[in-house]
Amino acid sequence: MVQYPSTVDRAFAALADPTRRAVLERLGSGSATISELAEPFGMSLTGMKKHVRLLEEADLVTTEKVGRARRCMLVPRAFEGMTIWLQRLDRFGRVVERTKGAR
Amino acid sequence: MVQYPSTVDRAFAALADPTRRAVLERLGSGSATISELAEPFGMSLTGMKKHVRLLEEADLVTTEKVGRARRCMLVPRAFEGMTIWLQRLDRFGRVVERTKGAR
Repeated sequence: MVQYPSTVDRAFAALADPTRRAVLERLGSGSATISELAEPFGMSLTGMKKHVRLLEEADLVTTEKVGRARRCMLVPRAFEGMTIWLQRLDRFGRVVERTKGAR
Repeated sequence: MVQYPSTVDRAFAALADPTRRAVLERLGSGSATISELAEPFGMSLTGMKKHVRLLEEADLVTTEKVGRARRCMLVPRAFEGMTIWLQRLDRFGRVVERTKGAR
């Protein structure tokens, strides 16, 4: 049975790359065009477009055409579900730690 | 230039799979053997071992041999860094949202 990746699968997969994580951090301080995103990495526009497309497919980033450029911005609340899920696991991990310490 | 994946890269990549996320949730309620993990998924031991190995390589899960079985448990604090990072992005996302609302 072929299972297609869900949005959550795609979101975590998108975060598994240091360039894409840096792009998200950059967009945290405000929207940016593809060229503004590419420049600090010394990356081609084509390379950056691929990263942005993956972030869009994961519903983490949205883009809009402004004149000849394409502005990218964070999708509000895109990180909420993952954050809550990881916070729970983090708490679980701490319980494991305390239980080990008490042995 | 070949870039080898960092632990953070591997951790997010490991989370990009629903079975591995379910395994982590299961381990959140306590350690389990590979067979205990495989059973609810109707998965072969070999299949589950692969998932557990990926989680180990990402430093999210640790295992120890107990008799003939291998017990798996969460690595304490393994999720702390990712959680803090995602919380920050989540806050950034909310600022973006408020800014858009104020336009």
